[in-house]
Amino acid sequence: MKELPIGIFDSGVGGLTVVAEVINTLPAEDIIYFGDIARTPYGTKSPETVRRFSIEIAEFLIKHQVKMIVVACNTASSLALATLKERFHLPIIGVLEPGVLKAIKSTRSKWIGVIGTQATISSNAYPEAIKTMAPDIQILSQPCPLFVPLVEEGWLEHEVTKLVAQEYLIPLKENQIDTLILGCTHYPFLKGIIQAVMGDEVVLVDSAIEVAEETKKVLSQNNLLRQQNPNPTYKFYVSDASSKFVEIGKRLLGNEIQVVIQVDVGGQK
Amino acid sequence: MKELPIGIFDSGVGGLTVVAEVINTLPAEDIIYFGDIARTPYGTKSPETVRRFSIEIAEFLIKHQVKMIVVACNTASSLALATLKERFHLPIIGVLEPGVLKAIKSTRSKWIGVIGTQATISSNAYPEAIKTMAPDIQILSQPCPLFVPLVEEGWLEHEVTKLVAQEYLIPLKENQIDTLILGCTHYPFLKGIIQAVMGDEVVLVDSAIEVAEETKKVLSQNNLLRQQNPNPTYKFYVSDASSKFVEIGKRLLGNEIQVVIQVDVGGQK
Repeated sequence: MKELPIGIFDSGVGGLTVVAEVINTLPAEDIIYFGDIARTPYGTKSPETVRRFSIEIAEFLIKHQVKMIVVACNTASSLALATLKERFHLPIIGVLEPGVLKAIKSTRSKWIGVIGTQATISSNAYPEAIKTMAPDIQILSQPCPLFVPLVEEGWLEHEVTKLVAQEYLIPLKENQIDTLILGCTHYPFLKGIIQAVMGDEVVLVDSAIEVAEETKKVLSQNNLLRQQNPNPTYKFYVSDASSKFVEIGKRLLGNEIQVVIQVDVGGQK
Repeated sequence: MKELPIGIFDSGVGGLTVVAEVINTLPAEDIIYFGDIARTPYGTKSPETVRRFSIEIAEFLIKHQVKMIVVACNTASSLALATLKERFHLPIIGVLEPGVLKAIKSTRSKWIGVIGTQATISSNAYPEAIKTMAPDIQILSQPCPLFVPLVEEGWLEHEVTKLVAQEYLIPLKENQIDTLILGCTHYPFLKGIIQAVMGDEVVLVDSAIEVAEETKKVLSQNNLLRQQNPNPTYKFYVSDASSKFVEIGKRLLGNEIQVVIQVDVGGQK
């Protein structure tokens, strides 16, 4: 079992930030990644549809004999994690809880801000998770639907992106939050602009590092941690052809991203 | 045969602008609409994937016994129309050709601009269609990937949208184009801002009216035009639950949009 790969999925390219951190933290593990770029984005879709897509992808990964699944997409983590855990009998973690734990540790003012896609924010998953763990903390949530298309357009430093960030974030800044959860795997690409609007005193929580640590912990607890592997393999599956996927992948992962295979998950049923 | 409905489809809500014009032009026709909002947008996806999705939807509409199909999506028209025509034996039209004909009639300077999604512009379908019909015309194309998310966000008059429009359109304005094709069914929602950037002397071509006229012509040529129908019915199918679909639908179509049924097209195979 220890020799089996870890399965990681996202609606598209965002989850590759998690892959990069998992490789750093767990260099002996093989990884199978699935990016659902034919149906991206998830953040504007209904809970039922995000659940259905997530189940299809989990089935695909399990067919490829993964020992564990990391849901590297905040929308799918918010809406589908409970369903997946109920349905499949292997360790499954999302990106939500590790980020929440980090934020609770970080806040002094006891006010935490959360930004994410419309679906993530509407799900109320972040406030619910925080309230369960730390009932005294106040939470301010803000959907930022234009951040993903702006990242996809590559306008990472653009005047327009600054204006959009101001529009979304000023209401959060006007309150006393001292910690802001980047509740979408795309948002770390906009860290510079977000930090500039929020001010240096606000801590930005990027879940990727936390998720990698949590992956290690869960593998270890289940006696699934691989110790030795001179040639770890990384396989990338996508549901659509995309030069952008390879391009962003190379930027994040360098030569680790060699082969990208296109498969049709929805049609496999 | 004349009593059968017309099938109209789009990746999402944009095609409802075409439905509104078809109802105006052909008040005796029944309509079945399909909006693929579970997999929207198409404009960022590969030609193969757009073709596969379009075939699945055409099969769905044909199963519902439509007498004709209108592809009310510029991306699908650009990438999948030829495939659909080859595969299915009923009249099928797209939104591309009617808009092109209108633009050729309108231009005096013989310079036409085309704006659309990344997939539509990369397909080169507009320049190819224009060159075939009018080889002396010069074409300038510009992808505007952020327009669809801005419309979906409802920022129709927002400062950010004006800035984005300037960024995309100034290179077109600096040339001598006198006619601009709005090559995406979402773009008419931004007509005001686009006209302001381009100047009043530039004619904006919104294909919806042209497509409705073309639909009438094709039905007539095939002896499929319905003359009498005291109670036309309009059925709306979508691949995901969406309150926004109903909301935008009501704004465009008033009470004509009553029942919206959710179906799973990809999974039906």
